[in-house]
Amino acid sequence: MQRGFRKRAGGGKPASVIMRLLTAAGLILSAAPLVAQEKPSEPPTPSSIVAASKPNEWKAIEPADLLVMDLAADTKGARRQVIIQLMPPPYSQGWVGNIRTLARAHWWDGTTVYRVVDNWVTQWGDGEDDPKKAKPLPPEIIKVPESDYTVPMTCQVYLFQKKVIKEQCDPALTGLDPIDPYVPKGQAGFTAGWPVAMALQSDGNRTWPVHCYGSVGVARDLSPDTGTGAELYAVIGHAPRQLDRNIAVVGRVIEGISNLSSLPRGKGEAGVYDDPALKVPIVSVRLANELPAGEQPRFEYLASDSQSFADYVHAKSNLQSAFYKTPASGIDVCNVQVPIRRVGKK
Amino acid sequence: MQRGFRKRAGGGKPASVIMRLLTAAGLILSAAPLVAQEKPSEPPTPSSIVAASKPNEWKAIEPADLLVMDLAADTKGARRQVIIQLMPPPYSQGWVGNIRTLARAHWWDGTTVYRVVDNWVTQWGDGEDDPKKAKPLPPEIIKVPESDYTVPMTCQVYLFQKKVIKEQCDPALTGLDPIDPYVPKGQAGFTAGWPVAMALQSDGNRTWPVHCYGSVGVARDLSPDTGTGAELYAVIGHAPRQLDRNIAVVGRVIEGISNLSSLPRGKGEAGVYDDPALKVPIVSVRLANELPAGEQPRFEYLASDSQSFADYVHAKSNLQSAFYKTPASGIDVCNVQVPIRRVGKK
Repeated sequence: MQRGFRKRAGGGKPASVIMRLLTAAGLILSAAPLVAQEKPSEPPTPSSIVAASKPNEWKAIEPADLLVMDLAADTKGARRQVIIQLMPPPYSQGWVGNIRTLARAHWWDGTTVYRVVDNWVTQWGDGEDDPKKAKPLPPEIIKVPESDYTVPMTCQVYLFQKKVIKEQCDPALTGLDPIDPYVPKGQAGFTAGWPVAMALQSDGNRTWPVHCYGSVGVARDLSPDTGTGAELYAVIGHAPRQLDRNIAVVGRVIEGISNLSSLPRGKGEAGVYDDPALKVPIVSVRLANELPAGEQPRFEYLASDSQSFADYVHAKSNLQSAFYKTPASGIDVCNVQVPIRRVGKK
Repeated sequence: MQRGFRKRAGGGKPASVIMRLLTAAGLILSAAPLVAQEKPSEPPTPSSIVAASKPNEWKAIEPADLLVMDLAADTKGARRQVIIQLMPPPYSQGWVGNIRTLARAHWWDGTTVYRVVDNWVTQWGDGEDDPKKAKPLPPEIIKVPESDYTVPMTCQVYLFQKKVIKEQCDPALTGLDPIDPYVPKGQAGFTAGWPVAMALQSDGNRTWPVHCYGSVGVARDLSPDTGTGAELYAVIGHAPRQLDRNIAVVGRVIEGISNLSSLPRGKGEAGVYDDPALKVPIVSVRLANELPAGEQPRFEYLASDSQSFADYVHAKSNLQSAFYKTPASGIDVCNVQVPIRRVGKK
């Protein structure tokens, strides 16, 4: 059953990030990039819902929660910038704290993007295997235990599949929409604009951030090592959900992912660049609040407990338009893609 | 519960495709590409299961079912080849027939890769919007109806989640492992080495091929157009399952995907290259059986009704190793990645 039909709201030119996201989602796969003419009788599309959302349904992303990574210009001299939003509490905060420390120490300046594996990850940092040659870490860096890959589930607001679920620490939740193949005894959903999963466990209900396209995680050695946050990767392929609860997700790329995803794939062991000339120098990585005020990028996300987000998820789960004739009647948590947009000029 | 434990089988150097596939799946996400030492007590890994599979569990892919696409060499003079396996019957055969016609006519020679959208698709063909300027199609090209996006479900052998399901046209199947979010009233699985979905519908049980990373589909205009097969795309991001049943899947890239996925993203409308210099010339596209015998690539896939494939899916759903401490207990159909390997020299 469709719901929430409404005419497409005009006006309000969406910002670039959202346009890219929605263009990618609703695109005509034709040689001719046609513009579908929406008839009044058609259900709202994800893009029309976002365009009609209310200003108070959007939440600002604080500059203190953004990492701005400047790579060396490409061969044509074009700027390459990647902007990463850091994971909010309660998730992965030990690693996120290390990452803030490393950024404030300008630790990544002069390191490189050194590994690219197709349909898997692009990785950056020091990349030195030999501990004697490795770049020393700031003394404040802490070791984080494996138990922090998940956190206890408190009564937050989650949403998935048309339902806004509050007070969902109630064990009765378990049975709701259990259609995430990776948490058969749990649920996938959203909190504070992030895709997460949750499950009932014998030691209490736990929740954790999930690996989607663009997710940023902490590379590590074998268990029980959990990594420091100095070596990071971004997912550039199908969501590798098998990594959930096995490695820390600390953020997501919200702008400039193609500067990581379109790099040549590495041909060395495990996709490391064997040709040093392929390594991409990292000029600087900064917390956005450490940049001059005029240079601080501003973003906001569509609140995942808003009605517009609920409508957006529903519309993405049931695409029906001049292009989509057969709605899927479902979606996976990584394909939802929480709307994020730039505020002000770039 | 784990099953099928066995010591890692030594010997049998896997071929390149499979190595890439398995390396990507089981990779250590560390600066140091460590080699996990498997203890006898550890469960078999996807790679150890594939290595221990029997020769008769592999099926040859006929050269007549392979498209070999040669792109212009890159700026360093390196060869760029993409090999696509065409979808077998009963799926999408109208479009596949057109594609064979186009390949035999050498229709793609001199066309280009003209569109790349991050986390979405890379597209190639003529790319001309104006019908008056478009490259003429061979007269044998047929129009395929939308009803052919799915086909009636016959009693084929499907497999998913540890279970080999025969005679699965039995409606009782519907309830089995219904953990594919895109077919709430159906099932995802594998047939003849391909990921597919199936559902009970009022007009009979239907099955269809699904969109995963590397899937090749037929670009089209708005419904009721279904495309001819002349304009093709390959998926280079998270599985766009919303396209299932809305557009024809006609094959998958089995070698050389990075020649499509690592191209610069298009900045024109809908990701089309606005800079003509970015278009990648297509030198030739041939059915492999039309190449000289010595140049015909040979591949085989792990039969999806074999015990080794069942073990492989189970192991990938429950990764447990020196790296993976917390098994997911599930997997989505696109993350399974049917093992495919080269036979003989490249």
